[in-house]
Amino acid sequence: MATPQTDQEKRKQISVRGIAGLGDVAEIKKSFNRHLHFTLVKDRNVATPRDYFFALAHTVRDHLVGRWIRTQQYYYEKDPKRIHYLSLEFYMGRTLQNTMINLGLQNACDEAIYQLGLDLEELEEIEEDAGLGNGGLGRLAACFLDSMASLGLAAYGYGIRYEFGIFNQKISNGSQVEEADDWLRYGNPWEKARPEYMLPVHFYGRVEHGSEGVKWVDTQVVLAMPYDTPIPGYKNNTVNTMRLWSAKAPNDFNLQDFNVGDYIEAVLDRNLAENISRVLYPNDNFFEGKELRLKQEYFVVAATLQDIIRRFKSSKFGCRDPVRTSFETFPEKVAIQLNDTHPALAIPELMRILVDVEKLDWDKAWEVTVQTCAYTNHTVLPEALERWPVYMFEKLLPRHLEIIYEINRRHLEKIAALYPGDTSRLQRMSLIEEGDPKRLNMAHLCVVGSHAVNGVARIHSDIVKATVFKDFCDMEPEKFQNKTNGITPRRWLLLCNPGLADIIAEKIGEDFLTDLFQLKGLLNFIDNEAFIRDVAKVKQENKQKFAAYLEKEYKVKINPESIFDIQVKRIHEYKRQLLNCLHIVTFYNRIKKDPNKHFVPRTIMIGGKAAPGYHMAKMIIRLITAIGQVVNNDPAVGDRLKVIFLENYRVSLAEKVIPAADLSGADLHGGHGGLGHREHEVHAERRPHIGTMDGANVEMAEEAGKENLFIFGMRVEDVEEMDKKGYNAMEYYDRLPELRQVIEQIRGGYF
Amino acid sequence: MATPQTDQEKRKQISVRGIAGLGDVAEIKKSFNRHLHFTLVKDRNVATPRDYFFALAHTVRDHLVGRWIRTQQYYYEKDPKRIHYLSLEFYMGRTLQNTMINLGLQNACDEAIYQLGLDLEELEEIEEDAGLGNGGLGRLAACFLDSMASLGLAAYGYGIRYEFGIFNQKISNGSQVEEADDWLRYGNPWEKARPEYMLPVHFYGRVEHGSEGVKWVDTQVVLAMPYDTPIPGYKNNTVNTMRLWSAKAPNDFNLQDFNVGDYIEAVLDRNLAENISRVLYPNDNFFEGKELRLKQEYFVVAATLQDIIRRFKSSKFGCRDPVRTSFETFPEKVAIQLNDTHPALAIPELMRILVDVEKLDWDKAWEVTVQTCAYTNHTVLPEALERWPVYMFEKLLPRHLEIIYEINRRHLEKIAALYPGDTSRLQRMSLIEEGDPKRLNMAHLCVVGSHAVNGVARIHSDIVKATVFKDFCDMEPEKFQNKTNGITPRRWLLLCNPGLADIIAEKIGEDFLTDLFQLKGLLNFIDNEAFIRDVAKVKQENKQKFAAYLEKEYKVKINPESIFDIQVKRIHEYKRQLLNCLHIVTFYNRIKKDPNKHFVPRTIMIGGKAAPGYHMAKMIIRLITAIGQVVNNDPAVGDRLKVIFLENYRVSLAEKVIPAADLSGADLHGGHGGLGHREHEVHAERRPHIGTMDGANVEMAEEAGKENLFIFGMRVEDVEEMDKKGYNAMEYYDRLPELRQVIEQIRGGYF
Repeated sequence: MATPQTDQEKRKQISVRGIAGLGDVAEIKKSFNRHLHFTLVKDRNVATPRDYFFALAHTVRDHLVGRWIRTQQYYYEKDPKRIHYLSLEFYMGRTLQNTMINLGLQNACDEAIYQLGLDLEELEEIEEDAGLGNGGLGRLAACFLDSMASLGLAAYGYGIRYEFGIFNQKISNGSQVEEADDWLRYGNPWEKARPEYMLPVHFYGRVEHGSEGVKWVDTQVVLAMPYDTPIPGYKNNTVNTMRLWSAKAPNDFNLQDFNVGDYIEAVLDRNLAENISRVLYPNDNFFEGKELRLKQEYFVVAATLQDIIRRFKSSKFGCRDPVRTSFETFPEKVAIQLNDTHPALAIPELMRILVDVEKLDWDKAWEVTVQTCAYTNHTVLPEALERWPVYMFEKLLPRHLEIIYEINRRHLEKIAALYPGDTSRLQRMSLIEEGDPKRLNMAHLCVVGSHAVNGVARIHSDIVKATVFKDFCDMEPEKFQNKTNGITPRRWLLLCNPGLADIIAEKIGEDFLTDLFQLKGLLNFIDNEAFIRDVAKVKQENKQKFAAYLEKEYKVKINPESIFDIQVKRIHEYKRQLLNCLHIVTFYNRIKKDPNKHFVPRTIMIGGKAAPGYHMAKMIIRLITAIGQVVNNDPAVGDRLKVIFLENYRVSLAEKVIPAADLSGADLHGGHGGLGHREHEVHAERRPHIGTMDGANVEMAEEAGKENLFIFGMRVEDVEEMDKKGYNAMEYYDRLPELRQVIEQIRGGYF
Repeated sequence: MATPQTDQEKRKQISVRGIAGLGDVAEIKKSFNRHLHFTLVKDRNVATPRDYFFALAHTVRDHLVGRWIRTQQYYYEKDPKRIHYLSLEFYMGRTLQNTMINLGLQNACDEAIYQLGLDLEELEEIEEDAGLGNGGLGRLAACFLDSMASLGLAAYGYGIRYEFGIFNQKISNGSQVEEADDWLRYGNPWEKARPEYMLPVHFYGRVEHGSEGVKWVDTQVVLAMPYDTPIPGYKNNTVNTMRLWSAKAPNDFNLQDFNVGDYIEAVLDRNLAENISRVLYPNDNFFEGKELRLKQEYFVVAATLQDIIRRFKSSKFGCRDPVRTSFETFPEKVAIQLNDTHPALAIPELMRILVDVEKLDWDKAWEVTVQTCAYTNHTVLPEALERWPVYMFEKLLPRHLEIIYEINRRHLEKIAALYPGDTSRLQRMSLIEEGDPKRLNMAHLCVVGSHAVNGVARIHSDIVKATVFKDFCDMEPEKFQNKTNGITPRRWLLLCNPGLADIIAEKIGEDFLTDLFQLKGLLNFIDNEAFIRDVAKVKQENKQKFAAYLEKEYKVKINPESIFDIQVKRIHEYKRQLLNCLHIVTFYNRIKKDPNKHFVPRTIMIGGKAAPGYHMAKMIIRLITAIGQVVNNDPAVGDRLKVIFLENYRVSLAEKVIPAADLSGADLHGGHGGLGHREHEVHAERRPHIGTMDGANVEMAEEAGKENLFIFGMRVEDVEEMDKKGYNAMEYYDRLPELRQVIEQIRGGYF
């Protein structure tokens, strides 16, 4: 054929996306039409594109159901150890395409939808992102669920079904404006409410110490309603469950106490209870010590632990004593992984259940708890560490405070025995920080209450051991581990860059999709010109596609032949978008100085949300858009340099921009980073990657060869050196003459 | 067969409930299993009865869908005049059984469910009542929708999708305690959200009078999200729509104004907007002048009128001018029926749209409005009449106040011309009541803005003409009509008393189910002993069934051989449950006085909710339960007299108790009643009925023969006479020596 391939022709090729069986296509069309009629109550005359999306989503969902039921039956029969991943964030993004891929249905659906006169990609664009996360921490949780299902592990994600996820970012006059993310407005086809597993969660009240043990009484009850989302493994028939809790007021909420009062007001006050699961706190790496957030943290923990214990008690082999539940075997059957300290209350809550409810003695309960829990640290940034004021905690969770005090008492006793007379160490390692107000250090609680503590990249784990948890590591070095986190190659390669996945699969087969180390096989093709040409072609197609997307969605025209230089991540001082700004201004000045000199055209795209209360981050956005205004409208620059702020960066936008990136920046201030999640995603693209020697960059340099990462800037040691001298980052920028120049250049802007 | 018939055997008989075709049964079983698997994601090992209910509901719903779509297509093609029934209440009760009956599917479903090893009645009991009404007014709206669909009329119900309907009544220590009615907790299988028809509703703001006309600006916007419920006609393939609006905050709600403020607070503040559709006001015949209620009233009106006008503009023949919408034909194509004054704002809102938006001149707009609107009056009780304070109204709806002032100015001008110099008449007939505060009389607005005004029973319509609207009737007598309201014989005979329906159908065919006058045919069987025996047998079965229900649900044992004497309706002084109490005490005293005298055993059951803020009504409940405690526990009484308070009286309980009633009381204080809806329902049972000569009782006496109603007490004229003398009802009771006796008898009670 002389003409270039159409989408439809491409669709028909055999690819890793799954072969479209004729029967599958007919079945999907039938099911699609059935759902349009019966589920959506529409005919083709009045159906909207959103109706078509839902018809397809229900069709695909139908293919999950049998596998989901059978997987859970299988777990019940085999009773394996179950992993419970507790996280306040699951940044899932969209589900439709990922499900089609993991079920091997993508090509069949594509073909069916095409035969119905519709366009699959258009329908996919209608799906709302499940934006229940801020950044790397939440996306990591999502990737873990995908990977655990793909490995066939009996895993459960437990979190909160926020009614509003991470806000939508609008850029208005160059500045960020937030909009509520009403992602459930049109309904969520992937979740199934499970009211039969609704559970009570208690707050406030007081503690009674009686002859029959301790009772937590006069509490306020909020109900936790579970919503289950299927998590399919990659082509392995496993479908795990993510169970998210939604807060429901009990039906007598406020009505019994205030029965004489205003009935209408009492019903409206239900909102107070249901606000618990209303909205995700939009902070990345920042602790905002609000009571509502503490409620969220206890809410997910209390509901989840009841659920875990219910399942343990009804399990076939776990609970060996036929008469009375024996918790001896609990850690053999139950793992609880704490994603950062946010679900740290799992430790005192499990103690409370075992001691107060199940009547285990403290030592036994503590052994069970520690053997069950494990903790992942995500950051050493001081402003991100959770330190709850004791007065607030005591009011909301009086019994848990007592338990933490007792944990701390025994913990300090142990230290005192090991390090006699070292009162400074006792103070440093205490779970309670003295001061006004007194505070609970949740990271210390997590370390003490877990049998394993890990960082998320080797250098980060090393830093953790050497700094924040040094004393703990001295005492119990065997607890400390590293788990360098990765990304799922299904979403971040196969789904978002199918062209590249096809080329790779052609050379080394499909196994790299479940075992990334297989990619080493590509070293054999490093000099294969056809292969290199194909890779370049795919990249160029991706760039063109993204340019078309930007033009359609944002009316921004960019040059697809230019270098796409991207920096996408939360806006944060320590993530140094400011440094990128300096870089842009340097380019700009260079062009202005010598307009006729050769300059490789470059489109710099920066995307990311600023926490609504983070003034400096919002000013950085304003600066980027202001720079863009100057640079993009200067005729002397032409299309050699463009600066685009990517509005409302989120998972589904990442899936579009990353495959189109030529360069990506991860210019963290040395020693401050955790994982650097986005770096993995970009790296899955085999793109040159610019970064400091921090986070996963260090290991990526080793694995991929330093020649593929451009490392610059200070290393951890350099920063420590500088910190000792008293510099801080902002001063550091201020010293640079180029920043002054920016500020002078930008007229009419924010500055 | 010697053994009595089992339910299953009865099920197999041919009856008006519809014959179970073999194919139907197989299809229903298949569909049921498909929904259990795919929709509910359950297998039979873990499914709960609620899952089975939903599987059946979805199965039945599937049978509605095709008819629903085709009905709406047909209306689009034929473009008949459309009736829009606007009501703040639709007291629908349950839907499953009614749908099965109207589709002729009941026996097939019964058989299918039986073959699946389940019990249909048990599943039906799981359905939540849609309790979006207080009493007769809301139930009338529901019956109207059923009847209009059964008549094949192009009718729409428009109202509010309250998240919480009428509260659930619990009796605790003999007193009423309210619980929120979270009827949507488990999902509503009968509704379909229609986000594509979401509409904005404006509040507050200010009015700008400019050269281009009047603009209402700086408003607060709340979105109205429609949820559609299918309303099937009785075996005629018609499925109409009830569209209920739910309030949604726009995504920028509070976030733009308070962008610098607290993001979390702004998101939580969305509740303020969404509170509009949160809860039904639980008052029956009582005006509670709260701003939130006024918001509800405007909310439903504003969304509905936009919807009506959109449909008119896109209609095939209605809007004859191809270029510019001509509203000439609007009243030919659109009828708006106002169920009481609650949706009275439809009149100024239609004027606002026609004048301010569509730029019609005032006179033309007024003609269209009056010809379109009609108003049903429900009550003449002064405390029930809506009289909004002008200051509150002006703040919320400034433009509407201007329009009402202009309507009033022209209205008074007309009166002044007809009755020169009669300033007292001007004052009496004004839409604005002077005083502190000034008030808007919504009933006057409705009369002025409608071409037809009706009462709901002949005597009530006569009273309306003679009292509250006397002046209006003098001026425009042709406006005033009577529409004695009835009930649907499907729900209130066929559904809730199938045994009786079968016996009747055997004698006179099934036509009475759509034409109640056919019942006159039964006169031919008045001396037919077998028929009379069958009727008595059915009644006794119903009584036994209800006794079993009470024992199961409330652990109350009653004697099914006793007379079932019921009074079920809202608790209200004017409905005179107190008189019934006196009656009970009289019986009690009679037995005590002469314990060995013959006394026909009697079970007196009183049920009804008291408005949460209505202290006297709650005291009446306390009195009833206290009387019950004395009477039911007196060994001298034995089982000759029992007093039962029927907790949480609602539509689905009415369906059980009414077929079991031997006697029913409607002892309204003469001249105060409206329709007396329950009386119709009881009367459909052909039961002796005790009542005053008020409401529909008057006409029922004429139609059914006075021998079937026991009429007592004062007539309207007697009450008027007494009122003139200065008595009031409470004093009247106080004078009765027997009430004193009650109070003395009841120890440890509320009094």
